[in-house]
Order: sequence, then structure tokens, then C-alpha cells
Amino acid sequence: MAKIAVVGAGFWGPNLVRSFAAQRACAELTVCDSDSARLEWIGARFPQAKLTADFDAVLNSNVDGIVLATPVTTHYDLARRALEAGKHVFVEKPLCQSVEQARRLVDQAERAGRHLMVGHTLEYSPAVAKVGELIRAGELGQIFFMSSQRVNLGVSRPNTSVVWELAPHDFSILFNWLDEAPTMIAAVGKDYSRRGVTDVAFISIEFGSGVVAHLEVSWLAPSKLRRTTVVGAKKMVVYDDMEAVEKVRIYDRGSDPKEHESFGEFQMSQRTGDILVPRLATDEPIMLQTAEFLQVVDHGRRPRTDGRNGLRVVEALAAATHSLEEGGVPVRL
Amino acid sequence: MAKIAVVGAGFWGPNLVRSFAAQRACAELTVCDSDSARLEWIGARFPQAKLTADFDAVLNSNVDGIVLATPVTTHYDLARRALEAGKHVFVEKPLCQSVEQARRLVDQAERAGRHLMVGHTLEYSPAVAKVGELIRAGELGQIFFMSSQRVNLGVSRPNTSVVWELAPHDFSILFNWLDEAPTMIAAVGKDYSRRGVTDVAFISIEFGSGVVAHLEVSWLAPSKLRRTTVVGAKKMVVYDDMEAVEKVRIYDRGSDPKEHESFGEFQMSQRTGDILVPRLATDEPIMLQTAEFLQVVDHGRRPRTDGRNGLRVVEALAAATHSLEEGGVPVRL
Amino acid sequence: MAKIAVVGAGFWGPNLVRSFAAQRACAELTVCDSDSARLEWIGARFPQAKLTADFDAVLNSNVDGIVLATPVTTHYDLARRALEAGKHVFVEKPLCQSVEQARRLVDQAERAGRHLMVGHTLEYSPAVAKVGELIRAGELGQIFFMSSQRVNLGVSRPNTSVVWELAPHDFSILFNWLDEAPTMIAAVGKDYSRRGVTDVAFISIEFGSGVVAHLEVSWLAPSKLRRTTVVGAKKMVVYDDMEAVEKVRIYDRGSDPKEHESFGEFQMSQRTGDILVPRLATDEPIMLQTAEFLQVVDHGRRPRTDGRNGLRVVEALAAATHSLEEGGVPVRL
Amino acid sequence: MAKIAVVGAGFWGPNLVRSFAAQRACAELTVCDSDSARLEWIGARFPQAKLTADFDAVLNSNVDGIVLATPVTTHYDLARRALEAGKHVFVEKPLCQSVEQARRLVDQAERAGRHLMVGHTLEYSPAVAKVGELIRAGELGQIFFMSSQRVNLGVSRPNTSVVWELAPHDFSILFNWLDEAPTMIAAVGKDYSRRGVTDVAFISIEFGSGVVAHLEVSWLAPSKLRRTTVVGAKKMVVYDDMEAVEKVRIYDRGSDPKEHESFGEFQMSQRTGDILVPRLATDEPIMLQTAEFLQVVDHGRRPRTDGRNGLRVVEALAAATHSLEEGGVPVRL
Repeated sequence: MAKIAVVGAGFWGPNLVRSFAAQRACAELTVCDSDSARLEWIGARFPQAKLTADFDAVLNSNVDGIVLATPVTTHYDLARRALEAGKHVFVEKPLCQSVEQARRLVDQAERAGRHLMVGHTLEYSPAVAKVGELIRAGELGQIFFMSSQRVNLGVSRPNTSVVWELAPHDFSILFNWLDEAPTMIAAVGKDYSRRGVTDVAFISIEFGSGVVAHLEVSWLAPSKLRRTTVVGAKKMVVYDDMEAVEKVRIYDRGSDPKEHESFGEFQMSQRTGDILVPRLATDEPIMLQTAEFLQVVDHGRRPRTDGRNGLRVVEALAAATHSLEEGGVPVRL
Repeated sequence: MAKIAVVGAGFWGPNLVRSFAAQRACAELTVCDSDSARLEWIGARFPQAKLTADFDAVLNSNVDGIVLATPVTTHYDLARRALEAGKHVFVEKPLCQSVEQARRLVDQAERAGRHLMVGHTLEYSPAVAKVGELIRAGELGQIFFMSSQRVNLGVSRPNTSVVWELAPHDFSILFNWLDEAPTMIAAVGKDYSRRGVTDVAFISIEFGSGVVAHLEVSWLAPSKLRRTTVVGAKKMVVYDDMEAVEKVRIYDRGSDPKEHESFGEFQMSQRTGDILVPRLATDEPIMLQTAEFLQVVDHGRRPRTDGRNGLRVVEALAAATHSLEEGGVPVRL
Repeated sequence: MAKIAVVGAGFWGPNLVRSFAAQRACAELTVCDSDSARLEWIGARFPQAKLTADFDAVLNSNVDGIVLATPVTTHYDLARRALEAGKHVFVEKPLCQSVEQARRLVDQAERAGRHLMVGHTLEYSPAVAKVGELIRAGELGQIFFMSSQRVNLGVSRPNTSVVWELAPHDFSILFNWLDEAPTMIAAVGKDYSRRGVTDVAFISIEFGSGVVAHLEVSWLAPSKLRRTTVVGAKKMVVYDDMEAVEKVRIYDRGSDPKEHESFGEFQMSQRTGDILVPRLATDEPIMLQTAEFLQVVDHGRRPRTDGRNGLRVVEALAAATHSLEEGGVPVRL
Repeated sequence: MAKIAVVGAGFWGPNLVRSFAAQRACAELTVCDSDSARLEWIGARFPQAKLTADFDAVLNSNVDGIVLATPVTTHYDLARRALEAGKHVFVEKPLCQSVEQARRLVDQAERAGRHLMVGHTLEYSPAVAKVGELIRAGELGQIFFMSSQRVNLGVSRPNTSVVWELAPHDFSILFNWLDEAPTMIAAVGKDYSRRGVTDVAFISIEFGSGVVAHLEVSWLAPSKLRRTTVVGAKKMVVYDDMEAVEKVRIYDRGSDPKEHESFGEFQMSQRTGDILVPRLATDEPIMLQTAEFLQVVDHGRRPRTDGRNGLRVVEALAAATHSLEEGGVPVRL
């Protein structure tokens, strides 16, 4: 039975608190935040939670696992100290702000014999898992390319690039599906709302296998899109996370050559093959993710989204940022 | 009352024939194709059409305007000969295969005092016109960027790059909306289905005003998408040509900061402001376009989508192709 | 090779003219309308068509088949005269205005050895055919009920009840799918826009097999709906004719009992089983229908949508009207 | 500061517990259920809640308000006892199983000077409130009719008619919007899944003002629908509760007569006028509802969804059930 401390009760932290609070395997739950108003807010909703504003007290307590939901600028330092204190550590994505920091954390965790887990929540989504199965089972044939849009309205973190905020989702999903590291990343972007803070970016990625991926991430969009298309030689898949039920659609390919008599017919004849919308489990990804961390803590099981996973994503983010700063020059990895 | 000849009765030509045939201002309609089966097919549907396999006969006839719906490889030569013969010329998009050819055609038409019109059909779409009005009226505020997806399943022209086949629509729409030429174009792409024929491409475009545009064009997509988002400082617009009725949606901006208690709430609070779906005229773009060519021929009126317009699009296509061949290197214009 | 005359070139007639004009099996096409402006309009578009304002001249001509696209008030009389003149007759739906008239036409056609076909176009739709196959093959299990919405904005025929204008589609589809006549019909409705002309109606239908169907037909709707749900013991089908491509969706059934923790989860767990969107042929129903009439005329083949079919629909329309006038009292058939 | 007891922690109760637990105005929260496993489940998630299996203990405690989320069969008896004990009472919808019982509860509450509130949650929905404002402000013009579909897959309460389970939502919304009681109700339905338990019903309702409403409620549907259309003389509204963001759409009316040349055009010209999707508050209805009960308890404020409101819905449910049992005979009220 795990004793867990969630550090950071601002934007995303309360979701983690709620998830841990709902699981029997979480024997004890501490919430740590420097803002007393946030602590009070948590206390009103989760009276079982122990509250503290003192991170050192958490380090010195008997908690087994520390969950960092603090701003990314603090991840490296807090994770380092938590590992030093002998705790298993769960860090919200992205793991940290540089490849160098990420490598150090991975090394430190391995030397300490502690587990480092990264909050790549969508890798726990039943929809993402289903697409991964289809790819690995060869159902789609050779994978050609992927195209993803992850956009919404409003800057949730005013000082963070949209690349570091939204693209970690796509990178972690891509690497999960392809089980392969990229060889090239290029990105262009703009800072419309706040000078120096990228709020729109287009990212191209190449893999050694020849797969190409393309991401649009933005905080300047009229409506929220979470849509990834995977094109294979045999079938194609659309994963749309904004759909309540039909998150995954599998398209048979084919061709439908015929004479086109009228404009109307022309528009209708472009698609061929059946479409299948598979049933998905309805588990909430964050629940599966926090359950995994409880297992990591209780049974020493290596997490699926471990530190190396987080490092790989940070490498991709750093490369995209570098390319973007250089006006789109391709960065080889 | 115009005498029109449509040359090329293959893929798109019949739509032009149908459009001209339905207009009173078209006094006489000739259809020319080297394939007698196609001619016969046209004859059965449009018995009023004169049929011929002889392009020279068309040149020597008393037709006032020649419409070229032949493969793009033939555009330059046929347009050149038609202008030489003193005809007004309508060329399907793209105007031709190189900037040099396009310039020559524009010059030739001007010297000859004939009009050269290019088949950028979507510039005649009521939806595209509505978005243009909104932009020019300042309704959206300063334009930040545009993002467009134009993808479908199936290679309609087996030997033509998707860039030359689909991107002309986006370039002509963009240039129409912004009334500005691009300063930089970069593109990456792949040839999955047929070696050497690009079937997927991602294109980035910069304008002197700071506007950035991004296009995805593809023949490897599970379903047809025709979706362009325009992001302005005040409002945003989505133009989705696959919608039967709601082709244009105008989004008020705003921000909606609030505490997020549960995952459910978090997903719902991202959008703010009203959405307006304006009523659009239901005119078919191709009808408006062919009506314009009839006016060009009858009244010597300069077409909206004239040769300079077509040249500007060819310059963009050539730049995108060059960048694509160089692995995504930005091309300055 | 059939000689066809289309009588009535107003609202729907031109679509029939276009369909016949595009078919090789139509050797000769006459269009008859009392309005010279309509005839001129047709002449401009279909110069191959012979034009006449004289129905008697059509009767006395050598045409083999007469197509009636005139107002329903004229159907009985014109069809009667056409059969008398020895022609095969195609009548737009509904066949006529009373059961008595419909019976007489069916009898007259049989006595005369001529074919009477009714324009139940949607029975020729590939989507309707697909659902019929699924039902007959037992794929859906025992059929429980059907629910249909056929609504749009605007009164196309100002003096005709929406029941007689829109419900014929649903009745003909239902009878086609179930191959069974109804035992009870009840209807309620209102005349909002024009006194005495029903513009909204809700119709309940029972069949001897226990199947129940329910229709909403309306001319007062914010957007066009054409959506029929078929619920069977094993699977369910939605046929949505407003979808460009995904007109038919097949839902596996099942149940998904689980604990519901939050509002969000509760909303997500209601559906179970895969969804299949089958590929459909893209043929235009009106083309298949006119092709059938050409076969009827040329080869004496009995049409699928014959007079008895049309009679059955008129019986249902009359019953619904009777119930509606009596305030919703069920009418036994 | 209110002391609240939620009785019944089965299907819906936990949502009420969660809502009360999250509100500062709820000073103390007791949860009562006869099933110890459910109590334990609640205890793990809401450690602040006092747990008891003894309803009498709740009655004798110092709680101010009792919330009944038990099966409808128990509502009357438990509510009666709670009022007798001097508590304010919130009863989940429907209030009880007969008009007689509902009248008695309303009378008893008035005599006792206690408030009786009914859980018509959707009356607290920002979307429902917005439509109500539009109707009352005359924005839609004279209201003609409403048509509603409330269907989903799966029988949540195996022994309860879908009429009593789902139709209370529509009745309470209708009565809220129109502020008028119905004069006639007729219903037809079927019991496919379990003999004697209606799982599909179609209900017609007439009001003295001439407004007509029509409901489809079902547990046998391929996908969840929550869609109500309101047709007025000037505008129409669609309220679709399954939409994450665009729950309310306001359609301007108009007419768009034009010649229809092709099938394609015909399909496109049916709608006229702009569509407006107004911004809605994102408050969760259940939160607003439980906040209201806390105010009722703390400040003696009469609830918006009071006992008379609940009675009116029960009258409608009873009338619909009576009509359904008589095969659809209209019931006058």
C-alpha cells in the first residue's frame, strides 16, 4: 500500500490528486503546494489528504512516491532532490527543460535504484493503445506517415512554448507506436500573443524506417482539435480524441475509378472501403497512469513511461526548438 | 454572345462543358478531344455541342474563347497557339509547368490584346468570397496565420505531383485573401505510391506582412478534407468546403480562465465566444467562373483570375517543388 | 431503344429529364409542359429534347413510355389517359390522391398489359438497398422498431400536406425493407404556415409481425434531416441520407455495466460494440430508377416499384391523413 | 452552513455526493445506504462523509436536508418520513410513482413549512436556461412546436419504464420553457427487452397555447441522442446536449426559392439564414442544483424545481403511461 505525495496543486495537480484519492492502493495521500489557498481548496475536496507547504517535509516523510505537478522549470531540481531522498518519482510531462538534465535524472534514478516515471498520460489511453496494436500487428501494412493536429484556444501556461506544452503528447504517442527514435526534426513557428513564447508551430519528423510525421501544435485555434491520422500501405487510421465515443476509425483502402458525370458525383466517389469504429475500453487514462505509479511504488515494477521514454521526448522537443530558432533548418539526431 | 470551345473532355472537362452548356450567354459550344470515345460520350449528353478531334480546326474556326482542360503538360503549347490564333484563353489550373512558361503566356496575351484566364475555381466560391470580405473588412483583426488541409484518397492524375494538383487551390485562395505575394516557401514531401511522384506534402509560406500559412496536401488520406483555418487577432474563421451548408464558421475570441475541477470540466472550458455560421449564396463556383469567361469574351472584361494571378501561383508551386527537392530548405521569393 | 416523354418540367421534372438524357438506352426524349418558359429553359439545356405543350400530342405520338412529373392532383387523370393510349407509365410519387384512384390505375394497367411504375426513388438508393440486405439476411436479428426523421425548411409545394409530400419516401422504404403491409397507422400534425395544409406530422405504424415504426415529417425544421434508425435484437442500423459518404452505420449491440465514478465517465460508457460503416456503391438513385423504366419500356420487365407498390403507399398516406384529421385516432388497415 | 444527508449511493447518488462534497456551503455530509459495500466505496472516495446504513438515524440526526437518490419505488415513503422529521427534502426525479402521492408530498411539505425540491437537473443546465431566455424574450417568435429525442443504449434501471426514467427530463424542460401545463398527452410504446417494461415510447403533448411537443424516449438506440428542436415563427433552436461545446444553435428562418438544376444544387438550397452558436457558461448542472439545495436549506429559499414542479411532471408521466396502456388514446388533462 503506497504512500504518495502530489507536489503542485495548480492547474493539473488536482486531477492527479483526484485519481490517487480514488484508488484503494493509495494508502496515504499528501498534497504539497506553496500556495495556502490552493492547499485549502484541496483540503475542502479531499479531506483525507495531508496538506503541507514544505517540500523538505515531504522528502523527509515516509512517503514512497513523489508526484511532481509543478511548473516545468522546477522539475529537474525537485526530481533530483526526491531521488536523492530515496523516493520513486513521477514527473509531469515534459520531464525537464534540457536533454542534459533529462540524462542526469535517468542516470541518477538508475544509480539510486529508484524508478523515474513521466506523465505521458495519453500512452495510457485505450484509443492510443488500440492504434498501437493495429500498427504492431501489421493491420495497416507498412506505415507511410502520420499527421497530427493538437490545437486549442488559450494559453494555459503563459511563459511556456506551445512546443514544450503540447508536442510532448504527440512525440510520446509517436515513439510508442513506432518504437523508433527520429532521425530528423524540423520546425517552424511564431510567437503571436507574447514575444518570445511560441504559440503556433509546425513540426516535421523523419524516422530511419522512412516514416514521416507532421505535427501542428497551437494555442491560437478556433476550436480544440486532437486528431492524428496514420497512413499505412493497407489501411489508415484516424484517432480523434475529441470524439466522445468514436475515437478510433479504421479505413480500408481501395480505389474507385469511375467516370464522373456531375460535380455532385465527383465529390462522392473519393472514398472506398469499409470503415470500422472499434469498441474501446472506457477507462480514464489518468486512472490507468496513476494505478501504474502505485504499482511502481508497491512492487518496484518499471513504468511503461519511464525516464528513458521521457528523455527521448525531451530530445525531440530540444531538436524542434533548435530548428524553430534557426528558421526551420532540419536537425539531425 | 460567345462562341466557346472546350479542349479536353477527360476528367474535368465535362464539368466545364456542362457549365457552358447551361448558360444562355454561350451561343455556340465546341468540344475538342483526340479520343473519339470521349467525344461520343459528350455528344450523347450535350447534343448541342459541335465535336472535333482537331485542335487546329478549333484555332481556325470562329470561336472567340478557348478553354483548355487538357493535361498540364500541354497547357503552355496549346495556350500559346490559341493566343496566336487571336482567341481569349481560359486555362485550367495550374496555368503551366514553369515560371518561365507562365511569364511568356502572360506577356503574349498582353501583346496580343487577348485575355488569359486561369481556372482557379475556388476563387469564385461564395464561401471563399465571404472569408475574403471578412479579412478585408478587418473583422478578424490583424491576420496571424492560416492552416489548411486539402487531402483525399486516390491519385487522380497518376503522373502529377500532389503539389501541382492540389496546392494551386490553396495558393490562389491565400493570394486572393491576402492580396500579397509570399516571401518564403518551404516544403517537405514524400512519394509513397509511385517513385518520383510526390503524393504527400507539407508546405510553409511566409508573407512580408508577417502572415504565415501552412498547407497539407495529400493523396493518401482516409477521408477527404478541405479545411482552412484563418487566425486573426480578433476573430478566427474555419472554411470547410466539405460541409454541405456550414462552410464558413466565424469564432469570436476571448479567454475563459477558471478553476478546473475534473477532467470533464477541463475539456469543456477551452472555447469562448459566440460562433456565427453566415448564410452563403448557393451558386456553384464553376458556374460563376464560366459566366466570368463568357463576360471576358463578350465584353473584353479582364478576368479576376487572370494570367498574372496564374503566374503567381506557378511561382509558388515552383518554389515549393524546389524546396521539396532540397529536403525542405526555405526558398526566398 | 426507348422513346420517352417527360410531362412536367417544373420542380422535379428537370432531374428526370437530365437522367434520361444521359442514358444511351433512351433513344428519343420529349418534354411536355404547359408553361412555355419552362420548355424554353429545358430546350436551352437539353437541345436533343423535343418540346411540346400539348399532352394529347404526346399521347398520339410514338413514345413508348410517359413519365408524369406534374402536380399530384393531375396524376390520376394523366396516368389514366396515358395507359389508355397504350403507353407504359411512370408516375412521380405519390401515385395519386386516393386509394380508389390508385386501385383503378393498377387495374387499368393490368387490363391493358402496360406497366405502371411509381417514382419511389429512394428504393433505388444503394444505402436503402444495403439496409434491406442486412434486414433480410437476418444480420440485425428480429426487427424491433424503426424511427425516422425527414424534415427540412421550406414548403416546396405550397398546397400539399407534408404527409403526402415527404412520408411517401418513408412508407416506400419501410415496406421495401419489411416486405409487409401495416396493420395500424396513427398520426398527429399541425398546419402552422398555411391553414389546412399540414406542415408537421408524427406518424406511428404497426405491422403484423410486431414491428413498430415512427416517422417525423416536417417543413418547419432548422436543418434538413434524413435519418432512419432500425433497431434489431442483434444489431442496429442508422441510415442517414444527408451524410455524403457514411450513409449507413451498423452498430453491434452489447451491454457495458460498470461502476460510474464521475459525470464524465457516465456519459462515455453508454455505447458498446464495434461500429461498421460499409462501403456503398455511388450510383445516383435517380439514374438507377430511370434506367429501370427504360428496361420496363424496352423489355416489358415489371418494375420493382410497380403500381401495387404505389397503391400500398397511397393506402398508408390515406390512413395517416384520416387519423390526423381525427386527432390521432389509430386507423386499422 | 448546511448539514446534508444523501440517501442512496447506487447509480446516481455518488454524483450528488461528489457535488455536495465539493461545496463549501455543505458543512457536513452524511451518506446512507443499506448496502455496506457501497458505503465502503463512498468512504474510500469521500473520507469526510459520515456513513450509515440506518435511515432512522438520519431522520433523528441534526441534518437539515435529506437528499433521496434511492429507487423511485421508495421515494414517497422516505420523503414523507423525512418531512415528518422536519427536514428539507430533495428527491431525485421523478418525485414519486403516482399523482396522488405527489400531491400528498406537496401538501405535507407546505403544511410542515419545509421545502420539497425535485432533482430535475437539466433545468439547471446553462444550455436549457439559454433556450428558455430566447423563448421568453420572444426571440423565436410564437412557438409552434418542439421535437425531442432522448435515447440511449442499455437499460439502466431494469424494472422501470423508459417513460418514467427518461421523459421526466423532457417534461421538466418543456414546462420550464413554456411555463404552461399540457392539455393533452398521448403515447405509444413497446416492451421489447423485458415483458411489461416499456423500453421505447413516442409521446405527443399539446398545450392550451397551441404549442405541440413530441418526444421519443428509448433504451434501444445505437447511439445516445439528447436533441431537442424548438420551432418558432421567427427562429428555430436546436439544443443538443451531446455536443461538448455547441449545445445550442439558433437558426434564422427565411426562404430560398430558386430554380434547381441538378440534384446537387437541390440538396444544398434548403437552408437559409445565419446560424448562431451562443457562448454558454460551463457550469455543471448538478453543481448548480446542489448549490440551490444548500441555499434552500440555509436560507429557506424556495427551490426553482419545487414540489409543484415535480407534481406537474408526475401528472404528465401518469397521463403518458395511461395513454400508452390504452394503445395511444389521447388523455385530456
